[in-house]
Amino acid sequence: MQRTSFAGMACSVARTLDVVGEWWTLLILRDAFLGTTRFDEFQRSLGIARNVLTARLQGLVEQGIFEKRRYQEHPERFEYLLTGAGRELFPIISSLIAWGDRWRPGGLGPPLLLVHATCGHAMTTQPACSACGEVLRLEDIRPQPGPGAAPD
Amino acid sequence: MQRTSFAGMACSVARTLDVVGEWWTLLILRDAFLGTTRFDEFQRSLGIARNVLTARLQGLVEQGIFEKRRYQEHPERFEYLLTGAGRELFPIISSLIAWGDRWRPGGLGPPLLLVHATCGHAMTTQPACSACGEVLRLEDIRPQPGPGAAPD
Repeated sequence: MQRTSFAGMACSVARTLDVVGEWWTLLILRDAFLGTTRFDEFQRSLGIARNVLTARLQGLVEQGIFEKRRYQEHPERFEYLLTGAGRELFPIISSLIAWGDRWRPGGLGPPLLLVHATCGHAMTTQPACSACGEVLRLEDIRPQPGPGAAPD
Repeated sequence: MQRTSFAGMACSVARTLDVVGEWWTLLILRDAFLGTTRFDEFQRSLGIARNVLTARLQGLVEQGIFEKRRYQEHPERFEYLLTGAGRELFPIISSLIAWGDRWRPGGLGPPLLLVHATCGHAMTTQPACSACGEVLRLEDIRPQPGPGAAPD
């Protein structure tokens, strides 16, 4: 399978993707979380072929991640808005950012700062326990087969 | 690009990947976080072609995610151990699990339960602020260009 290298892009998500995957889709989502909604904006930001972008956006609409909405009639133009399911992909994107910032830093520092409006600080996201709220350490997690586990 | 559908696998990570990507690599990491270290164990768990698995593992070694270590001499056998950088990919995997559990549930419930040993509860991971520790809500995050942002 052919792969494009994203290692040179000034984006920690992209740098992480260079390690763990092949994901125009996640780069589209990254842009969506930064406020991009329109086809041409995605295209300009990503430098992605228009037919590939069309296919990816269409797939995300079919999967319930984006809602496609017409914002102009003549000529017809559409925007792509994150649904509830789409917004909940945010922790995946922010985890990719955090890892890339730490393990694939560019020479100049993070390309993107996330400021937490509640406390006012630039931050990265950490995983916390949904039950007790404490920050999770990998060694404290005990995986167990759940009710939907495969028979073997 | 040809894609395999992972939607039918009893794994929320795989179900999430069916939406957002094409990632044997992340499935390998999922298994590594569940304790898998040996080539044959990965191969059996994933049902992946051996040459593809070899290439993916080798790539992850080159990227500093796994350390390759010989555990048997005759015949020579190797295991793949997560490095520090590899262990810090955990939030990505756990975010994929959380999303898949919620938005692509199987009929029987989660295939995998994560129990937090500290509090004793089955949980999912939530994103928390590294500065104040509070659980993050997307609407409270203000992205800003960082020092490593691209000139345009």
